[in-house]
Order: sequence, then C-alpha cells, then structure tokens
Amino acid sequence: MHKIRNVGFSLLASLAVALTTFVGAACAQGALPSWNDGTFVTTVTREGSPDFVVPAERIAVFDNDGTLWTEQPGPVQLAFALDRVKTLAPQHPEWKDKQPFKAALEGDMKTLAESGEHGILEMFMATHAGMTTDEFAKIVTDWLVTARHPRFQRPYTDLVYQPMLEVLAYFRANGFKTFIVSGGGIEFMRPWAERVYGIPPEQVIGSSVKTKFQMRDGRPELFRLPELNFNDDKAGKPVAINQHIGRRPIAAFGNSDGDLEMLQWTTMTGGIRFGLIVHHTDAEREYAYDRNVILGRLDKALDGAAVNKWTVADMKRDWKVVFPFEKR
Amino acid sequence: MHKIRNVGFSLLASLAVALTTFVGAACAQGALPSWNDGTFVTTVTREGSPDFVVPAERIAVFDNDGTLWTEQPGPVQLAFALDRVKTLAPQHPEWKDKQPFKAALEGDMKTLAESGEHGILEMFMATHAGMTTDEFAKIVTDWLVTARHPRFQRPYTDLVYQPMLEVLAYFRANGFKTFIVSGGGIEFMRPWAERVYGIPPEQVIGSSVKTKFQMRDGRPELFRLPELNFNDDKAGKPVAINQHIGRRPIAAFGNSDGDLEMLQWTTMTGGIRFGLIVHHTDAEREYAYDRNVILGRLDKALDGAAVNKWTVADMKRDWKVVFPFEKR
Repeated sequence: MHKIRNVGFSLLASLAVALTTFVGAACAQGALPSWNDGTFVTTVTREGSPDFVVPAERIAVFDNDGTLWTEQPGPVQLAFALDRVKTLAPQHPEWKDKQPFKAALEGDMKTLAESGEHGILEMFMATHAGMTTDEFAKIVTDWLVTARHPRFQRPYTDLVYQPMLEVLAYFRANGFKTFIVSGGGIEFMRPWAERVYGIPPEQVIGSSVKTKFQMRDGRPELFRLPELNFNDDKAGKPVAINQHIGRRPIAAFGNSDGDLEMLQWTTMTGGIRFGLIVHHTDAEREYAYDRNVILGRLDKALDGAAVNKWTVADMKRDWKVVFPFEKR
Repeated sequence: MHKIRNVGFSLLASLAVALTTFVGAACAQGALPSWNDGTFVTTVTREGSPDFVVPAERIAVFDNDGTLWTEQPGPVQLAFALDRVKTLAPQHPEWKDKQPFKAALEGDMKTLAESGEHGILEMFMATHAGMTTDEFAKIVTDWLVTARHPRFQRPYTDLVYQPMLEVLAYFRANGFKTFIVSGGGIEFMRPWAERVYGIPPEQVIGSSVKTKFQMRDGRPELFRLPELNFNDDKAGKPVAINQHIGRRPIAAFGNSDGDLEMLQWTTMTGGIRFGLIVHHTDAEREYAYDRNVILGRLDKALDGAAVNKWTVADMKRDWKVVFPFEKR
C-alpha cells in the first residue's frame, strides 16, 4: 500500500511515462479510434457519455507473474517450491534418490524440467500441501521475508512494477475493482497482495489445491490436500473470472500466452474495452523475452494484440522506472 | 435494492423487532457475555475497542435458501428445474418414458424423490447446462418474471425476508462486505441478487457446473457443461469461503444443517464472532419446520447453536414482519 496511496487522482500529472501507454498511446496507435481526446478510463467514467460504465461494472483483471512483478529467471513460486524441498528434505530422506526431488535438491534445473508437468506438479503438491491454510499463509509470509531474487538480491515483493502499481491505483481511483487473475497459487499470493498491490484476498484469483474442512482438537480447520483443484491459466482464466467475479471485465492486463483467453474474453465483445500486454524488452533494467522462452512465452498473445488492438506496453520505451526502488 | 436503501444508519430506530435478535437478544440470552451495553456490530466497529475489527476484515456470510428467502414447500431452484423440464420436453420425446424426467413431467414428487441424488443431479444437469453463461442468466431472469410461489402466488423474489434485508443493510452500513454462501447455484442467484439483496455477483458463492471457454463465430463464450463443479453445502461451505473470499468471516447466518460447518468455521476461533440461525417457527406467516423435514432440516445446527452460543432467531416471536409486501 505504501507507494499506492500517494497516487490518487493526480496520477495523470505523475512522472511515469507508463501511463501514457494506455491513456495516450491507445489513442495514438489507433487502438480505440472512437475516442477523441479521451482515454479508456475517462471515457467509461464520464457520466452522460454513451460509453459510460456504472461503477459496479468497472472490473479490471491483472495477471500477476510478468505483469505485476518479475517472473524471470523463473516464477517466484518455483523458487519457493525449491526452497521448500530443501527445508523439508530432512523429513524425506528418500528424496535424495527420487526425482524430481533429487534434481531440486541438487539445483539441477535441466533434469527438473525433464521431469515434465507430472514431475513439477508432484514437487508442488509435496511442498504446497499437507498443512492448514493458516499454516501455509505463514510459511509463505516467512519465506518472503528472507528470500532474495538471485539477480537483484532483493525481496521478491520489491520486484513489482512501479508503473503497474500506478495503473492499479489509477483504476481504483476511478471506481474500478481490481482483481488478480494468475496462474500462480491463490494462497501463495493472498498473504501479501493486499500490502503490496492494495488488492484484498477476495479479489485474488489463482490456481489452487483442494482443501478439506475438518475438526482438530475441537477447532475447525481447512487442510490443504496434495491434489490440484484448478489450474488458472490460459482457457482456465475466463472460467475462473466467471466463477469468482460473475461479471465480464472491461479491462485486462497480461504479458504472455497464458493471458490470451482472458484478453479475448474481456475485449472481444460489444462496448468499449481495454486490453494491454506488458512486453518485456528491457534486458538492462529487467529482462527481454517474448517468443524465445518457454515459461512466460509471449507469442500468440502478441499476434492477438495486433488483431484485437490491445495496447502493447514496451517496457524499455514506455516505462520511465521499472521497480519502486529506482525512485529516489 | 428498493427496500434496502432507506434503512441506512437509522436502523436501530426502525420498526423491525428482528434486529433486536442480534443487537439485543444476543446480550439478553448471554450469547456474548463479554459485551456490556453493546452489540456485536457496535463492538467490532468501535475504534479503540480491544475487539475492534478493521473494515477489510468485516466479512459476513449468509446462506440463501431459508435464510434470506423462503425454501418451502421446496427449493426455488427445484421449481425452476421442474419448469425447465416441461419447457424442454418437446425437444426430448424420450423423457416421457425416462426417469426422473417422467416423474418431473407428471408432477410425481414421490417418484422423483425416489430417483435419489443421482436422479436429481441428472435432472439438474439436463436443465442447467448446454447453453452459455449469458444464455443461462437470461433464462433465469425470464423465469423469475413469470414464476409464482404455489402458496403466496407471488414472484419468488418477493419472498425474501424483510428482517434479513435490514440485517444486510445494517452490516453494510457498518463497513461489512456481505456475501451469500449457498448450496444453490451460483449462476442461479447472481442474475437477481444485486437487485434484491444489494449483493453484487462477485459476492455470491454457490454450487456450480463446469464451464468451458470456447470461440463461436469469432466470439468467445463460456459454455455450461452437464458436470458438477462444486457442491457448496455443509463442509463445502468453509472450503468455498476460503476459495472465494480468502478471509475467515466474523459473522455467519444460516438456517439448516447445511450451514453447520460455515457457522463453526466462522465462530469457533479466537476473537469476537457472531453466528445466527433463522428458526422457522411460523406456519401462519411462512412455515414451521426444523428437525422434521429432509430438505432444509435444522437438527445438528440447532444443537450446535446451544453449544456455541449462536443466536436463534425465532421467526414467530422475533420478526414483526416476514416479507416486504406485508409492510404498508
């Protein structure tokens, strides 16, 4: 919340060029040719405008990994899982000889990747289940205090994008409800999303394991089971948006092919809509990748941006700052 | 929204004795002996109080059937399903000889009940799936316009409980977010819950079918599949609360054994909490039932109320009016 509160309505006058990405560039690029001098947000919030949207319908959805915080050199939650394997290894002597745990313990990413979806899922279930929801939230919170990003040597929650914090604040200042819709774990994000993004738990949507209600020592608890409940990625994102929100968003922000269907669901309909893709083009300040990677690949969604007039935010060109700590 | 808007902060002075059920009776009955002159809502909203709860944590959850609207002589959604069978019958000539559809078409409730959970589920899937989410919302909306309750001969949305509308408004006026957590269909409630209860779609939680994202004629849609996704009843309610809200409620309202675990999850923890059970004791104005019925049975939860100091609202004794249309 620290950086967000100060932004308010004066955002348009603020420093970040990022904002012109969608309040201006959408226009300049002809993405929304029916706008005159306007912008998406000012258009949908102008009473009397034919494109006016009542506050209740102002829903904006944001991917997390690569859209709100950095996802390179690998997803933060993967780093968490690898650390958890090390922490739990003493209780699992068999892991020394059992894949994918052996590879995880040895830091052998190639063998880990070769264990495939099944292997990765097994590692996630072994590290993300077998405790209550409250216990898991504490594990995540504690881990984030000490874990450091390998390149920036900072807590992962420092590596959120300042321009996107401003977008979140700007949308909320204009009556939008902002939701995270991420392939990442819903319970991995909730413990810190409110503090860092100003997004409360009930507006965080993500992948999940099954949980079971049970009584222990006369107290109710929710126990996390080693079984995938929902994979909130690709075509799963519109499904989860409908399940959790029950309204179709009017603005969507993503950065990879995992966000393609969410952007389609949001924008390919009647009425004024806004789609934006964060394009990682800045190897110096962050990372440069799109069609050339596996995790976080931006390929079909980049083609979709051209077809559907989604704004592409070029990190190198459009973002005056990337991370909050660059601001002095 | 019509009845709700007028209530506001003056509620304590309003006519409904219902409110004393939880602002007063909880005290009088010794349900919350640590209160002095206070009430649950005033206690948790009083800044500086040791029991003060920040607005973000003020989550109240409400069952729907039998708690916010009438569920006798049977769930409204069952009446909807039976009408849908009749509407769809011309496209399904085989239903004339196939159970449970034959029983549904003949109004033979005994045989329908004998088809068991499997039969009822089959009927629900046949009537609730096979269309887009938008199409289903329209079907529900259209049905509610013409359908009439068999005894009261009024639209079902007239048969909501005036005292509970006032509770919803009172909690919201005190900074609470109000959520529905119902065994009923999430997409069956959302089309009207905002208008009738002031509860937006993103705060409606319920049972659901699986949906599939797909493109049709170049437009994205969500298609409802004839497969149960989640049964939001009994031990499923705390699971769904965690999945959708990600916070533990501090107040819960129910009326049957289907709400037992939700009430336990909400109240059996540290801190000040509030649980309330609507007890249907008024055969004259509404219905009288508890341990003596199958659908909507109040048995274990009534025992739980005594053990856990949940307030029991006696409809006949505590509610000055039951339905909004009684007010002149």
